[in-house]
Amino acid sequence: MIVALAGGVGAARFLDGLSLVYPPKEICIIGNTGDDMEMHGLHICPDLDTVVYTLAGVAGRVHGWGVEGDSFRCLEALGKLGAETWFQLGDLDLATHIHRTARLRAGESLSTVTAAIARSLGVASTLKPMSDDAVRTIVQTPGGPLEFQTYFVRRGARDEVLGVEFQGAGDARPAPGVLPAIRSASAIVFCPSNPVISIGPILAVPGIRQALRRRKCPAAGISPIIGGRALKGPAADMMRSMGMEVSALGVARLYRGLVDLFVLDREDKRLAPEVEKLGMRAVITNTIMAGAAEKKALARAVLKALERA
Amino acid sequence: MIVALAGGVGAARFLDGLSLVYPPKEICIIGNTGDDMEMHGLHICPDLDTVVYTLAGVAGRVHGWGVEGDSFRCLEALGKLGAETWFQLGDLDLATHIHRTARLRAGESLSTVTAAIARSLGVASTLKPMSDDAVRTIVQTPGGPLEFQTYFVRRGARDEVLGVEFQGAGDARPAPGVLPAIRSASAIVFCPSNPVISIGPILAVPGIRQALRRRKCPAAGISPIIGGRALKGPAADMMRSMGMEVSALGVARLYRGLVDLFVLDREDKRLAPEVEKLGMRAVITNTIMAGAAEKKALARAVLKALERA
Repeated sequence: MIVALAGGVGAARFLDGLSLVYPPKEICIIGNTGDDMEMHGLHICPDLDTVVYTLAGVAGRVHGWGVEGDSFRCLEALGKLGAETWFQLGDLDLATHIHRTARLRAGESLSTVTAAIARSLGVASTLKPMSDDAVRTIVQTPGGPLEFQTYFVRRGARDEVLGVEFQGAGDARPAPGVLPAIRSASAIVFCPSNPVISIGPILAVPGIRQALRRRKCPAAGISPIIGGRALKGPAADMMRSMGMEVSALGVARLYRGLVDLFVLDREDKRLAPEVEKLGMRAVITNTIMAGAAEKKALARAVLKALERA
Repeated sequence: MIVALAGGVGAARFLDGLSLVYPPKEICIIGNTGDDMEMHGLHICPDLDTVVYTLAGVAGRVHGWGVEGDSFRCLEALGKLGAETWFQLGDLDLATHIHRTARLRAGESLSTVTAAIARSLGVASTLKPMSDDAVRTIVQTPGGPLEFQTYFVRRGARDEVLGVEFQGAGDARPAPGVLPAIRSASAIVFCPSNPVISIGPILAVPGIRQALRRRKCPAAGISPIIGGRALKGPAADMMRSMGMEVSALGVARLYRGLVDLFVLDREDKRLAPEVEKLGMRAVITNTIMAGAAEKKALARAVLKALERA
């Protein structure tokens, strides 16, 4: 079983490729829930849903999130009732949030509901939230603390980031099966996700970082930063704001002790020696997943490197 | 101020006509919430919504409920997730339920939220739920108790009705403003709604029946039964099952002491003498609201009769 730590779009694309070259049933995904939010009274899990929709083959083709071909009639009607509409929620996507919220309120855990939704949509891999307990990523800005989606979507990531806090992480327990999955994994992959606010919250759940340190299998990190830029999302801006080096090397530093391999894009080849000084083997390959061929090639390269580790 | 007791489609059509011949701002509608239900974790108020949508001019033209031109993409997606789909909820309609549920869960009362939704959709009349407390209409059948929508929509009103219970009515308080509205009304109208399960729950809220008995203004009831048949809904079947006479006279009996006038269709003219024996004046007119002209004519006839009472 390969265990993958995953954020949103970048992780989903990588996992989609991995599923094409490795048995999907033997992939266990641990997803970030720090970005979760309550909107219109509904419990929304942007990262988990992006992974599910992508693996189910229904994700929005342009942006990578939401459901392809979705309509926004309900959201428009919500707007007429005076509700906030800055967070795009399509009619098909809303079904997921409505269903999840109903089941959570009925007392089911987020892991149970997440597994059920993934199964209903035909996803063969196992998808677990990092925790069934609420962890909320709070971005500290000069104007005060902002919930992650407010910072990212509503305000377009325009605020200076003074710091990031994972509210509730200290008391959160790993979701059932998360630690056993890490302990019995044949390989671990840190998907190409934002190291600060996608992988960071997962590592902040007590027990997970320790289990990763004590791993009995090879682990690989994949840089979401290529040539000093993030392909998706606010990773670069956040890292810069927080005084981290905005580069694959900056990411590798965050994964020190947690991975044995670090996958860098060809463009960042020159960083390999510095990465290796951190005690991880640098794997150079093309990490831009433009299409199915590139996704599969990246997954194969990662699998090959893990086999050799 | 005219106070109107209202159920769903029949009441909404009458109120639509009334709004065309009487200042909408001077109409206070007290709506039935006994049919309310929780579905997909959302709080649904079928009767209140039918009234709001109709007065806002957006109600479904064929059936009289839901939103005209609505789509059902979210419901279909909910079905794929394993949720029940027997209760039709359109994408536009869902916005109302999502918004209401969010505000209720945030601690607002049903009356506050109902008023806000009506205002947002441009309804000038005042709409109040009969109570902010939960009252649930339970239909007793040979197979056991059924929630009203389960009896009516899911099972197509096919069960024999042994009785009807308004669960929670005993402890329910009239919504704020309901009793003052009745006390200060210039006229009261019982809309052409199911007397058992639309008007019945309103009368079952402690204080409302008594306030109606002590009214200082004329009150008129309008029969929803014409020629022994209900134009809409299960009124006839329910009344028959419960051993009531399925006729305008049977309805009039339920309103004894509560109304001074009783409006019958021309088709039921022969029942007038029996109705008058109950201590109410019979008003004979056309009560079938085929179009705007008929709606307005009925409203005018009711207003005229109330003025003379």
